Amino acid sequence: MRTVHIEASTSYDVWIGPGLLKDAGMYVARAVAPCRAAIITDDTVAALYGDQVKDSLARAGFDADLWAFPHGEQHKTMATLADALEWLGRIGLSRSDLIVALGGGVPGDLAGFAAAVYCRGTRFVQIPTTLLAAVDSSVGGKTAVDLTAGKNMAGAFHQPEIVLCDTDVLRALPAELLRDGSAEMLKYGMLTDAALFESMAAGTWKEHLEETVAACVAIKRDYVKEDETDRGARQFLNLGHTFGHAVETCSGFTLTHGQGVGMGLMMAARAAGIDTDPVRRALIACGLTPDAPYPAAQLAQAAHADKKRQGDRITLVLPERIGRCALKTIAVAELPAYFAKGTGEAT
Amino acid sequence: MRTVHIEASTSYDVWIGPGLLKDAGMYVARAVAPCRAAIITDDTVAALYGDQVKDSLARAGFDADLWAFPHGEQHKTMATLADALEWLGRIGLSRSDLIVALGGGVPGDLAGFAAAVYCRGTRFVQIPTTLLAAVDSSVGGKTAVDLTAGKNMAGAFHQPEIVLCDTDVLRALPAELLRDGSAEMLKYGMLTDAALFESMAAGTWKEHLEETVAACVAIKRDYVKEDETDRGARQFLNLGHTFGHAVETCSGFTLTHGQGVGMGLMMAARAAGIDTDPVRRALIACGLTPDAPYPAAQLAQAAHADKKRQGDRITLVLPERIGRCALKTIAVAELPAYFAKGTGEAT
Repeated sequence: MRTVHIEASTSYDVWIGPGLLKDAGMYVARAVAPCRAAIITDDTVAALYGDQVKDSLARAGFDADLWAFPHGEQHKTMATLADALEWLGRIGLSRSDLIVALGGGVPGDLAGFAAAVYCRGTRFVQIPTTLLAAVDSSVGGKTAVDLTAGKNMAGAFHQPEIVLCDTDVLRALPAELLRDGSAEMLKYGMLTDAALFESMAAGTWKEHLEETVAACVAIKRDYVKEDETDRGARQFLNLGHTFGHAVETCSGFTLTHGQGVGMGLMMAARAAGIDTDPVRRALIACGLTPDAPYPAAQLAQAAHADKKRQGDRITLVLPERIGRCALKTIAVAELPAYFAKGTGEAT
Repeated sequence: MRTVHIEASTSYDVWIGPGLLKDAGMYVARAVAPCRAAIITDDTVAALYGDQVKDSLARAGFDADLWAFPHGEQHKTMATLADALEWLGRIGLSRSDLIVALGGGVPGDLAGFAAAVYCRGTRFVQIPTTLLAAVDSSVGGKTAVDLTAGKNMAGAFHQPEIVLCDTDVLRALPAELLRDGSAEMLKYGMLTDAALFESMAAGTWKEHLEETVAACVAIKRDYVKEDETDRGARQFLNLGHTFGHAVETCSGFTLTHGQGVGMGLMMAARAAGIDTDPVRRALIACGLTPDAPYPAAQLAQAAHADKKRQGDRITLVLPERIGRCALKTIAVAELPAYFAKGTGEAT
């Protein structure tokens, strides 16, 4: 087992290794004294792991309840958040008790948001069950739901007490969920770790899953550390995301976040003018499609609503080479030109 | 005009004086450079002051929009919050823009909560239009909505950029809204300022409204300063509130917060065993009813769900004399005895 220590407004550990979920209660009890524990998850994850986590918490002395909402990004809404909060109130959870966020990015973001606002802030732990959640959304304290106007448009910064990434659970994931996570892992490689990028391109990362997940978590930790609320260095983590969110939006969210980010990484590389062959090869090796199926003008239009926009300026992350990137703040009016370069319509 | 400077996670000024609302734009512009400004209020306040504030913001260079929800505590809900957030998304407010919370405690708490979570935190200004909001909810950064399980059960700590308390607006309030505010002002007097308490009991405070509001804001500021998230000294501000919330709950919220707090102050004094005559006289002078019309057992039952409870302990604030109080942490099981003493059923 590996531990990555996170220093934020509160400090906590991310534990990565086999068998963490079935003994979740024991590990949670190392960070939080037994109390009431409210597990929030979706119906898919509840069916797979709900009883295991609940029983394990009970064995460790927690008084555990579980609430599940229907799975899918379309339920990551204010209405589901309200249902979750009403449930917490109904079972009489107090603000000194604990919320357990169990699942992929959607339950993690929603349960974390519920914890951020229930009684104006209740402690929570994260048990990510997808690769994407393990390497991305479980670190950094971002919680959110979607609004009609865009993804993650309402939320809070709220740090967990502990994060448990069970590599047995990650190994059992279907191919499309591994693929979605690997897009974010390729991003970390492009940002700062050429060796990680190469292990993804070569497919050898799956043999060293624990080590690779820990490397990704540590990279994210380093970016988040100095910039918890997303105004400075954390912007590097948006590599591929301004382009990728536009792809997701144009697809009406039929393409997943991982697929969008994969295409976004390719566009960022092309827009930056670096050799795109290694990026293309790595994306294909991870089962991702390199090229976005939408014209630059449509993508640029979708990017116009990006919540990262600051007035009429927006900051892009552009690779200088694999393992090194730079921030570039441009006028929003320049977006169409960058998208044209990114899609290859302009060279 | 008086200014009270607040030091919290961000520092800001509370300005108190005549004519602030009709020139709100000019005053807001001293704290926030002109940008888009989204005014959130209720329909009552919108009809009285909506155009004045919007026009004033426009004159100062802000691009202002206004959204109003139906007035009343029954609309301080997650559903109204969701409507507010969807409106902010629809008008395309960015996270570097501004939200204006205009109104009494309900619009202030709800708009502040919307600002706390829109794009994970957007700047906001408070323009309280009731005495209660001016002396209480506009200071300290607490924002919230109600859940079925209780008042203010979901919310966030989020500090405004500036607070504008217009004493002309406060002077124009109907008697019942003055009465509700004066209950909180009597609380400040009982906590720490016997002279303030006396001016409330004598009715002279209305002649020195600006000075009195500033004194109350400064008292609250001093308690909040060292304890922004409500775990230590801030608990003193709950004087009369554990008792008072129980009264509100027993009345099915037909009694207002101010009426509940007034009766709560009387119960706290009686439970603490101090001379209650000055408290009774002061409450009556402010138009408040001293005695709660519910039996102790029913009140104690209602207090059991108090979100201030920490597991099986709860902290009461008990006056030692007018101007000095102490915290006392008791077992939840002792609540019925304290309520029996507070109502006078036991002596």
